[in-house]
Amino acid sequence: MEKNIEVSLLFDFYGELLKPSGRQAVNLYYNEDLSLSEIADQTGITRQGVRDSIKRCEQQLFDFEEKLGLFKRFRELENGLEKISATAQEILDCSTDNNIKRLADEIKRTAGKLKE
Amino acid sequence: MEKNIEVSLLFDFYGELLKPSGRQAVNLYYNEDLSLSEIADQTGITRQGVRDSIKRCEQQLFDFEEKLGLFKRFRELENGLEKISATAQEILDCSTDNNIKRLADEIKRTAGKLKE
Repeated sequence: MEKNIEVSLLFDFYGELLKPSGRQAVNLYYNEDLSLSEIADQTGITRQGVRDSIKRCEQQLFDFEEKLGLFKRFRELENGLEKISATAQEILDCSTDNNIKRLADEIKRTAGKLKE
Repeated sequence: MEKNIEVSLLFDFYGELLKPSGRQAVNLYYNEDLSLSEIADQTGITRQGVRDSIKRCEQQLFDFEEKLGLFKRFRELENGLEKISATAQEILDCSTDNNIKRLADEIKRTAGKLKE
């Protein structure tokens, strides 16, 4: 079973909607990087049971995103804020007016805070 | 049963996660502004059944937000983008440098597009 980087990102976003047992398995597999056998040992579920549970959760995470699209939307917002920061920096670099520099700096700080 | 403006906002955000029957009832009640009796007539469910279904969905919507907090996060992003737009407008108003005006306009347009 391959680890999918997208699952890991969607888990950070929608993980709280998963059932606790599945959430724990996905967390151990993706965030703690345990193997299926190690998770089976730790949780007392069979290796196949762990595998099925993770597969089910992965599908649910993809379903949440297909229905809501909020992860994609957030990524777009982050990219846009990155672009705004860079443009504000350009203003800082080419202006000599202190008032304009102050305003550009304010934009950069607001964009930076929103990305956190 | 009072209509709650927050439910309506959360419904736009997380509505797709509700079961189709509940989603339909909430939509008719909040977006189409039908009464419980009208929804009962239209769907063939008892008035009490409609009421219970809507109550259950409202609770689910609040639970989604409590778990994920994405609605709150989006609102913060929108407010921040509003602030960025206003600051970019200040730069446009007080600068006479065409290059700086072009950059400030670019920030304003990017922020506006992200808010859509």
